[in-house]
Amino acid sequence: MSMLFRKVAFVGIGLIGSSLALRIRRDGMAGHIAVSTRSQETLDKAEELGLGDSYTLDAAEAAKDADLVVICVPLGAYSAVAETIAPSLKPGAIVSDVGSTKSSVITDIAGHLPEGVPLVPAHPVAGTEHSGPEAGFDTLFEDRWCILTPPEGTDPSALDLVTQMWRRAGSNVEIMTPAHHDLVLAITSHLPHLIAYTIVDTATYLEEDIKAEVIKFSAAGFRDFTRIAASDPTMWRDIFLKNREAVLEVLGRFNEDLTMLQRAIRRGDGDALFEAFSRTRTIRRGVIDAKQA
Amino acid sequence: MSMLFRKVAFVGIGLIGSSLALRIRRDGMAGHIAVSTRSQETLDKAEELGLGDSYTLDAAEAAKDADLVVICVPLGAYSAVAETIAPSLKPGAIVSDVGSTKSSVITDIAGHLPEGVPLVPAHPVAGTEHSGPEAGFDTLFEDRWCILTPPEGTDPSALDLVTQMWRRAGSNVEIMTPAHHDLVLAITSHLPHLIAYTIVDTATYLEEDIKAEVIKFSAAGFRDFTRIAASDPTMWRDIFLKNREAVLEVLGRFNEDLTMLQRAIRRGDGDALFEAFSRTRTIRRGVIDAKQA
Repeated sequence: MSMLFRKVAFVGIGLIGSSLALRIRRDGMAGHIAVSTRSQETLDKAEELGLGDSYTLDAAEAAKDADLVVICVPLGAYSAVAETIAPSLKPGAIVSDVGSTKSSVITDIAGHLPEGVPLVPAHPVAGTEHSGPEAGFDTLFEDRWCILTPPEGTDPSALDLVTQMWRRAGSNVEIMTPAHHDLVLAITSHLPHLIAYTIVDTATYLEEDIKAEVIKFSAAGFRDFTRIAASDPTMWRDIFLKNREAVLEVLGRFNEDLTMLQRAIRRGDGDALFEAFSRTRTIRRGVIDAKQA
Repeated sequence: MSMLFRKVAFVGIGLIGSSLALRIRRDGMAGHIAVSTRSQETLDKAEELGLGDSYTLDAAEAAKDADLVVICVPLGAYSAVAETIAPSLKPGAIVSDVGSTKSSVITDIAGHLPEGVPLVPAHPVAGTEHSGPEAGFDTLFEDRWCILTPPEGTDPSALDLVTQMWRRAGSNVEIMTPAHHDLVLAITSHLPHLIAYTIVDTATYLEEDIKAEVIKFSAAGFRDFTRIAASDPTMWRDIFLKNREAVLEVLGRFNEDLTMLQRAIRRGDGDALFEAFSRTRTIRRGVIDAKQA
């Protein structure tokens, strides 16, 4: 298949970045892949894994002459990265990212970019509980969604190139506004992660003998939460800080619903519990029908 | 292998009961399997599936002459079942169950049983999100825990027979007190289910267009919760009513921890979030080390 970009630069190369780099290479989407990281250690690892064609600790150097720059660092570092790379971006270079919140991308990046540099924020809804460049694999995005949230007036050819890249990575591309993305993901991803982190944290404070048994009998449900709660702490800290409003909104709803069930348990109101536990089956059927199960 | 019981009676035959019946048959653990259910429909299904040797709507008839009676109905029906079968139990017949809470078994069953009828409550920690006799399969209990909570002074030979049955079904048998069981399971199973039901219920009340997208993008974490929240509503209503004290205790701890994280998000306290999200990795490592992942 045809090349999409002469040069692609990765700023940061964790699970998502390395998986995308491997796929770009495999499908011949770029002539040159430049990799930059903040730490020498990660850079060495990326080189060992052969993820790119050139390696540097200087994000500006990687971004120089690139047709596409993909920012793959934690959300908290976006602003600094944008400031660093802005002066070396060539006219028409596309800037994109892979972050889990999207309103914050506009705030943190758009203002730093020179005129004529289109910003096409992306969120590949894919991942595992593992992190780092060694966790990447080139089929990570197959049959998964990739949500693009281009600001109004984004150059259509830039949007088209980024769309083509994700489609060739195997993803179904969906376009929505940043605010809408952030609300939907607050429910489907951010709240579940917060809850999973909380329940595992609650177990962390148990007496040692109980804790040992919680681990032993974790297959009864708890285990699934420990997997979710094993995700990268820096990435998730930044997600909650960057999507604060939407997360607090859905968390408020969740708390009301949980309090209602807690009250039903305390008062022995079996009917209320039965009704709630039956209602939830509709959503599960929806998930199965949508082939997301 | 040798026969353990001349006659085993099942009172109720859902996912767990049917799986155990199939395994008892496969391993030649019983000479006769009697099946009783409350509804004709379930009884017909059990007969179609060939789960037993005799079928009746009368639990007392099934229990007559049985060496082992396994109660496999929702916890809320235990007391009525015990009252019904008590007069037809022969001396030395063992009564057991497969319920998810264990203190309540003593309260609901022990008082109804005649002298000389040992009670050996059991909780096979296994299951799927499916329910009903057609969901059963004979390997469900392999490499899973089965917790026995015999009351003090239980006839050792009765305990030994029930232990042998579960070992031959492929389970690792563990013995503990009912109160200890109920606390450990409140954390590893009951709280995770309550949380999963709640988060899916929260999504149920969203506007229709958002709900459709929540289903579409459910793979981002939400999906795992919908699977847990698809479990049988009657069974789970009864679990929360029967293990109220332990569930409210761990739910109180969970709420405190969640409030702490909510406060950290609202105040933008990244350090508190990072610390909590790092602490939880220790438990995950424990789960992996215990080969429960």
